[in-house]
Parts: sequence; C-alpha cells; structure tokens
Amino acid sequence: MQVYLDNNATTMTDPKVVEVMMPFFSELYGNPNSLHKFGTTSHPALSKAIDQVYTALNAADNDDIVFTSCATESNNWVLKSVFSDHIVNGDKNHIITTEVEHPSILSTCKWLEEEGVKVTYLPVNEQGVVEAHTVKSFITEKTALVSVMWASNETGAIFPIREIGDICKEKGVLFHSDAVQAVGKIPVNLQATNVDFISFSAHKFHGPKGVGGLYIKDSQPLTPLLHGGEHMGGRRSGTLNVPYIVGMGKAIELATTDLHEKMASISAKRDRLEDAILSLSDTFVVGDRKNRTPNTILISIRGVEGESMLWDLNNGSIGASTGSACASEDLEANTVMLAIGADNELAHTGIRLSLSRFTTDAEVDYTISHFNNAVERLRGISSSFAKQQPTEGGEVQECELHHH
Amino acid sequence: MQVYLDNNATTMTDPKVVEVMMPFFSELYGNPNSLHKFGTTSHPALSKAIDQVYTALNAADNDDIVFTSCATESNNWVLKSVFSDHIVNGDKNHIITTEVEHPSILSTCKWLEEEGVKVTYLPVNEQGVVEAHTVKSFITEKTALVSVMWASNETGAIFPIREIGDICKEKGVLFHSDAVQAVGKIPVNLQATNVDFISFSAHKFHGPKGVGGLYIKDSQPLTPLLHGGEHMGGRRSGTLNVPYIVGMGKAIELATTDLHEKMASISAKRDRLEDAILSLSDTFVVGDRKNRTPNTILISIRGVEGESMLWDLNNGSIGASTGSACASEDLEANTVMLAIGADNELAHTGIRLSLSRFTTDAEVDYTISHFNNAVERLRGISSSFAKQQPTEGGEVQECELHHH
Repeated sequence: MQVYLDNNATTMTDPKVVEVMMPFFSELYGNPNSLHKFGTTSHPALSKAIDQVYTALNAADNDDIVFTSCATESNNWVLKSVFSDHIVNGDKNHIITTEVEHPSILSTCKWLEEEGVKVTYLPVNEQGVVEAHTVKSFITEKTALVSVMWASNETGAIFPIREIGDICKEKGVLFHSDAVQAVGKIPVNLQATNVDFISFSAHKFHGPKGVGGLYIKDSQPLTPLLHGGEHMGGRRSGTLNVPYIVGMGKAIELATTDLHEKMASISAKRDRLEDAILSLSDTFVVGDRKNRTPNTILISIRGVEGESMLWDLNNGSIGASTGSACASEDLEANTVMLAIGADNELAHTGIRLSLSRFTTDAEVDYTISHFNNAVERLRGISSSFAKQQPTEGGEVQECELHHH
Repeated sequence: MQVYLDNNATTMTDPKVVEVMMPFFSELYGNPNSLHKFGTTSHPALSKAIDQVYTALNAADNDDIVFTSCATESNNWVLKSVFSDHIVNGDKNHIITTEVEHPSILSTCKWLEEEGVKVTYLPVNEQGVVEAHTVKSFITEKTALVSVMWASNETGAIFPIREIGDICKEKGVLFHSDAVQAVGKIPVNLQATNVDFISFSAHKFHGPKGVGGLYIKDSQPLTPLLHGGEHMGGRRSGTLNVPYIVGMGKAIELATTDLHEKMASISAKRDRLEDAILSLSDTFVVGDRKNRTPNTILISIRGVEGESMLWDLNNGSIGASTGSACASEDLEANTVMLAIGADNELAHTGIRLSLSRFTTDAEVDYTISHFNNAVERLRGISSSFAKQQPTEGGEVQECELHHH
C-alpha cells in the first residue's frame, strides 16, 4: 500500500480535472487572444472556469480574479507592487506580516527590508495563530499592508482573517491573505471578509501545478508584476495557460461542492489518525483541532527526530513531511514549532500529516499501524529519549504545545 | 479543411509532448522538493528535461537555465532585476532596446521610464532589423542592459545577435535577447554567442502554454522576480510545474532534432505560399526571406484591410493574424510595419502567416486558393484601392517595404 499524506505540499491532480484539460493541448490549442476561431473556441471554457472560481470564493462581479502561475507569484506580486505603489511612489514605509508565513512571503519581505522597508513579523500564540488585537497594535500611519495567511501550511491553524480584515478596514490599511491552504479546504467567503487580496494555487486542491490566482477586491489598482501584452485587462501578461485555467475551474468546483460534507469526512479520518498517534506516550499536536483545516496534523513525538520518522514512513511507502516542502531540503528545526515556543530539540521532532478527500480509511489504518511500529523502532535507538525517560518519567512537556 | 497559420502566436502541443506529461498529473504527482518517494520519483524525468533544454541550446554546465511560467515572466524578470541590481542599487540609468520588441519588453520599459530609467528604443531598418552598429552608437557608461529580440514575432526577421553580443561584451554591458521566436525554429547556439540572458516559451515550439525559461550565462547574479521557497537554487520559487517542464524538454528536443531538415521543409512550404501571394499585384512582404525564421510571412496587400482579410480567412477556417496576438484585440496599425516606414494605410494591411512543422502541402494549396479569392473579393469592395488604381496603375509602392 502507498499512502500519500503530504497534501499540504501538493495534491494529486484529480483525473476529472485532467479530463477537462485534455482537449486544450492538441485540439483547441489556439491563443485565446487571437481573433480567429482557433483562438475563440476556448472562450466558453475559459468563461466557465472564471465563473467556477468566482462562485467558489463568492467574489463579486466588480472584483478581479487574475490567473497567475501560482500563489508564490501572487504573493510576490502583492508585496512588490504595494512596495512600488505605496512605498517607493507613496508615503508609507511599513508592512506587517507573521513569523510563520510561507517562504514566498518571508523571503520577499527580507528582500524588501534590504530595499529599506520596515517589516514587522508578528509572533503566533501557543495555538499557532496571530491574534487580531496583536495586528491592531502594530498598525501605524506608515503601514502600507498587512499580510497574514488564512491557514497555516504547517499546522493547519486557521487565522482570524475576518477580525483582522475588519481592523484593517477600520484603519484604512490594505490587507492581503495567502489563502493557499484555505481555498478548497475550508469556506473562503470573500463577501463576508474585508480582504483586499488573496492568493491561491490550484495544486493545493487537486488542480494542476503551475496555475493560481490573485483576488483583487473592487478591481483596485495594483501595478502588474508581469507587464506585457495586456492579457487579462493588463493585470497579468503572458499567453493564457488555457488547459490549466480550465482545470483550475473544475478543481475548485469539485473541491468546494458540498464542502461541509467533505470537511466532515476528511476530519473524521484525520481525527482517527490523530487520536491513535496521541495514544502513544509523549506525543503532542499543535493547535486545537476545532480551529484547524480538516486535513492537517502537525505532530511531535518526543525522542524521535522528524527526519528519521520521515524516512521510516517513506520505507513504508507513506509520504509525509517535516514541514513545508518548500524548505524540506534543509534539515532545520520546524520554524512554526519554534515560533510557538517549542524547544529546539522538540522542534526537530515535528511530522506533518496532511490528508485529502482521496485518503481512504484503509490508508489511515495502515498508517496508524506503521506509525506505532515506527515510534517503537525509533525511540529504541534514540539516545535523547532514553536519557530523558528515567529522570522525567511519564510526560515530557516543556513547551506550550497543545496536548490532547 | 482547417488551416492553422498562426504558429507565432502559439502552437499545437505535440501529442508526443502530451504523452510524456500525462503520468505527472495523477500518478507521479508528488512535489519534487519533498523528500519522500512521491516527490523523488519525478527527479529522473526532470533531470532529463533539463538535459534536453541544455542540449538544444548548447548551454554550458556552469550556465543556469531557470524554468519560468513563460517568456513574458522571463522578460519582466531580466528588465526589473537589472533595474533593481544595477540602477536602483547601482550607478547605471540606461537601457537600450528596440521599437519592435514584444509588448512584455516594451510595456516593462515604459513602466521603468516612469520609475526614472532612461530607455532608448532603437529603430529598425527597411528589412525590419536593428543593425549592430546602431546598438553600439547608443551604448554609454550609464547603460545597464541591451535587450534585443533574436527574431521578430511579426516579420520573422532575424536580428544580428552575435554581432550585438560581441559589441556588448566589448563594452562590458549586459545583453539580453528575447529568443521566444528563435528557439526551436532556428539554431540558437549559446556557446557561439555572447549573450547574458535569453528568454523562451515552450508554447512557441509545440510545448504547452505556461512554461518557459530564462538562460543566465555563467550563473551570474540576478535578483529573483519570484522570491520564496528556494526552488531551483533560489532563482525562481514556486512549486515546479512538473508535467510542463517534462513536456518542454520533450518539445525542445523534438523541435531541434534535425533542425536544418525541418527548417528546409517548412521554408519550402512557406516560400511556395509566399510566391503565390506575391504573384498577385500590389503585394509586399517584409524582409529578405534568407534572413527570416523559416515559417513566417508578413504580407501586405494594398487595398485590403488586414482585419477584413483576417475575417475572410477565418470564414475559410484559416487562422492568421494581423500581428502579435498579444495586441490583436486592438484594431491598430501594425507597429512593425510603421517602424519600417510603411504609411499608415499600408500598415493596416499587414497579415502574418506563420507555419509549423505540422503544416501540410495540402493546407498550403488550400490557403493559396482561398487567398486569391479573398483578395479579389476584398479589393472589389475596397474604396481606397479602387481610387488608387486608376491614377497610379500597376504597382503602388510608397514605402520601403521589401517587394519580391
């Protein structure tokens, strides 16, 4: 059996999504900006995809949703164009974000700091979220943008986006949310939330890798990141990736149809897996499961290096992660676990398991069984765990991780 | 019969390319940056694709080729990062380009002018190319970058890239070429050319839309356009679009294998079509066919609006263009024809026909037949042509267009 539990890194493209993409490679391959029928025959499918995305996010007709190559592009676009529009060519100088954002936010902010921007990186609480009042307390007259993720890629923790949006609106500050881990997983209702920009990627909800979007409330101005041939009303140039846009429309429709039923089904499997692992001694999960995306567990197993567990799971054909795939080639401590106050040793024990609607009960059973054996195997060879056990006994809980 | 003659706008994805992409959607769908085998199983295919691109372009091992979402992204990246690295954070202030570049270069340059950069837009000669000595005469100590297309999207004219590269190297100025119309159509030998950066897109050589690349000579520094998770050595972040990268590798291999034979075959068809149209009175083609990409004709038919001809061809299921698809929703004069000295009326008569290796002799026959009838039909209802015919008689050649 193979079990893929790394759906926060990327997902299988749903075969139904591949099916709707196929005609646009070698049959209906015209450039949709061309005037002839080779170009225009793709227009109905593109219109449908646009409708599917607007419907799924409850965007308004006067909002813009611009297709990009991924959320990383969308995130870079917002940050760099707010820098250009409101800092270089304006009177602001400050951006607020969090310590636990995706690298596409954090690296861009580091670069903006080199260019003279003041960036505040807000800490998270023991539940792994930034509280709205914390955001409020750091907004000044010079703040150009607040950028806070909708849900964490690492813990699944859901951030108080509605409250932060209300604060930003009241203060007159632009608000962006990297919603890449929220769209398709939990309700994202853009009519109910004061958010100026959100980023998303299709490959996080069973669409293809290499297409995403940026939502722009009220079609407000934002200097393009990709200037050029005036595609998408001049918002983002480059020949439209017709197959992937059509696929993203189908993928977001499939992900958000009967979303609450899907959430219940996934979280039931997730909870069963989580309960089974937590029944082992000295295991910890970050964040209250009521406030998490239904598919995610970030679990810490005292005495077991995350990397070792990853390899043991891999030997059992179970794909998991020690955290963001975007940084997974570094054997570093889990930054989110450090941020919530874990000690360095514990922060090296994090294992992220992220399910999907394709995860089966049999796969959960298999994973539970393998996990139990793996913990026993790895703790048997762990010198740090062996050393601690006799002196501490029972539970070793030195940090503020949430323990079920 | 349907005849697609708009291959400079985009091409059919070769079914052989689609075939190699397919396993990476729903079977081998892991994130290649993940450490588990769901991620690593795509590594051999990615390595092969990288090799295929390096081989096709004759890039050196110490050069970088970074995959992007398209040439528009690559073009924006080079211009904006040279701006950041050498103008904002350096002592240069000047960029040289041409009047006939793709909108992704021209629009970016217009934006850079707003940011204070001095941009020189070089004119083309009657053959539609910028001469190397012209470039040389405009380089100053303040010049940060020369950006000149390898071949024109509109006319197919091939620019003197080797000579311009030698001049830039001698002067110590960075040289970028938008090679999107050259790669896969004519030899692009990066060992034989002093070029620091080239941009290309897979969908111009029968790969998919939404993937391209930027070549970076000697892996020299260039601030990323997309900061983030350190993908591709930190050059360009964002989850790798595995299917399309694998597809681009196959596509560039297919396009450049036996390239000279392919060029001969395509140009034979192109020349037959061109000769047939030129046998009609008052028709003009831009640029010496010996110095053009083998697939391209920009033809002008005195007295026939380009838009009218486009619609007539479309009614006959022939897809052509009045110029760049990226600007084709505007009913404007062909900017390249204006640039080479055509009067405004003639500049509205340009029709671009661009063939591919999939264009058949039967399609050429059909197009010739339809074209002859269309010219007769449209000239019959053209008041401007009717007015000129009696007074001028015979040939009406008021501009420096090349007339075979």
